[in-house]
Amino acid sequence: MKVAVGIDIGGTNTVWGFVNHIGKVIIKGKIKTAEFKSPEEFVRVVSAQINEVIQNHSDFELCGIGIGAPNGNFFKGTVEHPPNLPWKGITDLKSMFLHFFDLPVLLTNDANAAAIGEMLFGSAKGMKNFIIITLGTGLGSGFVSNGELIYGHDAFAGELGHTIIEEDGRDCTCGRKGCLETYVSASGIVRTANLMLQEDKTRSILRELTKICSKGIAECAEKGDELALQIFDYTGKKLGFSLSNTVAVSSPEAIILFGGLANSGDLILKPAKKYMEKYLLNLYKDKVNILLSTVPEAHAAILGAAALVWKHVENNSFIEKESI
Amino acid sequence: MKVAVGIDIGGTNTVWGFVNHIGKVIIKGKIKTAEFKSPEEFVRVVSAQINEVIQNHSDFELCGIGIGAPNGNFFKGTVEHPPNLPWKGITDLKSMFLHFFDLPVLLTNDANAAAIGEMLFGSAKGMKNFIIITLGTGLGSGFVSNGELIYGHDAFAGELGHTIIEEDGRDCTCGRKGCLETYVSASGIVRTANLMLQEDKTRSILRELTKICSKGIAECAEKGDELALQIFDYTGKKLGFSLSNTVAVSSPEAIILFGGLANSGDLILKPAKKYMEKYLLNLYKDKVNILLSTVPEAHAAILGAAALVWKHVENNSFIEKESI
Repeated sequence: MKVAVGIDIGGTNTVWGFVNHIGKVIIKGKIKTAEFKSPEEFVRVVSAQINEVIQNHSDFELCGIGIGAPNGNFFKGTVEHPPNLPWKGITDLKSMFLHFFDLPVLLTNDANAAAIGEMLFGSAKGMKNFIIITLGTGLGSGFVSNGELIYGHDAFAGELGHTIIEEDGRDCTCGRKGCLETYVSASGIVRTANLMLQEDKTRSILRELTKICSKGIAECAEKGDELALQIFDYTGKKLGFSLSNTVAVSSPEAIILFGGLANSGDLILKPAKKYMEKYLLNLYKDKVNILLSTVPEAHAAILGAAALVWKHVENNSFIEKESI
Repeated sequence: MKVAVGIDIGGTNTVWGFVNHIGKVIIKGKIKTAEFKSPEEFVRVVSAQINEVIQNHSDFELCGIGIGAPNGNFFKGTVEHPPNLPWKGITDLKSMFLHFFDLPVLLTNDANAAAIGEMLFGSAKGMKNFIIITLGTGLGSGFVSNGELIYGHDAFAGELGHTIIEEDGRDCTCGRKGCLETYVSASGIVRTANLMLQEDKTRSILRELTKICSKGIAECAEKGDELALQIFDYTGKKLGFSLSNTVAVSSPEAIILFGGLANSGDLILKPAKKYMEKYLLNLYKDKVNILLSTVPEAHAAILGAAALVWKHVENNSFIEKESI
């Protein structure tokens, strides 16, 4: 059986899994990233774990290794100045893995991996032009055009979270002001909630929460709390406005929402769609879907990373077919 | 000699030319678009002119026909609801030309054709990731990613001129408010000038012009007129801000400015670059050039249209090479 390995490197944990071509995770494992001071040692241990699985499964035919990592550079196979990993500077992870595997090794950032995962196994199946928006602590994005990721000249395209939607707006961790992710992300919606709770003195069950978090706001909104609903409307407006401008650049068939805030479903989806349509140029109205991800969140990171391999195999088999 | 025909369809005139593979226009012709009530008759006459040239040049080996047209749809080969052409609705120009030529016929909009022209014959030669901004009465744009145009799912990607940069900003011809082209275009800079002339009562030689136009503003600025310089600074700021957000989406190697307003050279280039750098995310700073087009404007439209053919030939010869 043909299998791909997907590795998702996070600041605390790294998870890996063997994935078949229809996106089933067959075997998976986990290792604490933070415990490895040296990336070489990290790669050695992960590679040993993977090789052990292969030795125990003579029916596995490994096609390649896909890696999703923060600040991953697809062109170079490097991880560059990741804020949350123990290894600083530029780490050539691809070369390190190639030392243990004579197979294609592909590495990109988390949002790009998620985009390919969504294209092969999720809501974007069969689509060639779409955008994925990952709503975590920040806002990540991946753009697919004509079936391929838009990497740009340096592999760093797709930072929609750091487009400025309000001049002199909220302070962003990037050092600038008014970035989309300061409004639309788990931390952005909490900032909105805290501001609205200060400004608006009406009753709200939000005031009963010990700590305001995006999940708590969603729960209050689901109970019909007016202020919580306003918070989602405001967040959806900022997202919808930004998406309307983004559609004018890449004209996607759909925009897929993934991650924490996307789990609030219609609470974020409906206002985002409403305001996107409001601001859209006529040419694009009623043509662009906003969808929720259908890749199971528990396995999404592994599936996204493994999808890099299946996409690579698919592209190459296309060339092989062409050359017959 | 291998040649391509480039046809540029405008509201008043249509120009066509035979172009060789290094971008030399060998023979060209012109016809009044507005005189043809029926597109079929128009295509018949243009085709006859082209065929006459071929009959008189036995050394010409025609590789295909490229067409640049307002609201051109690359996927369908149609022109859809063009505001300035005599034919309303959707016109299947590609099929009409295929009736006269057993050759590849490729059709797209003016800005996309200009992008391919720039990639083969101009400032973007050798680049795989860049953006072209055409500054005419409005603002058009074409995005090239990994050597290919971003068309989106419906062929209508690349409407940067209609991204909203100011909510409730200036009225736009599209029916919305605050679109980039209401600030950055020949008509946009005239609006800025008229507003500034009203608000600012200081001396300016602009007041001596019988009619404010973008060329006149540039001439005054070149003479050192303070208000005219402020107008360019304001226009460059709006463009630079918009480009900083656009770079975060597609991370291009360069942005090429083309057309009327681009002829003012450093007057628009310098403030655009200054403000783009100011607003850019650190990741992209000092990496993105803003360049002026080097395709000669007199032939740009023909060259852009013909470039569609050469690009098509190049892509196909790649596949042929792969299959050897």
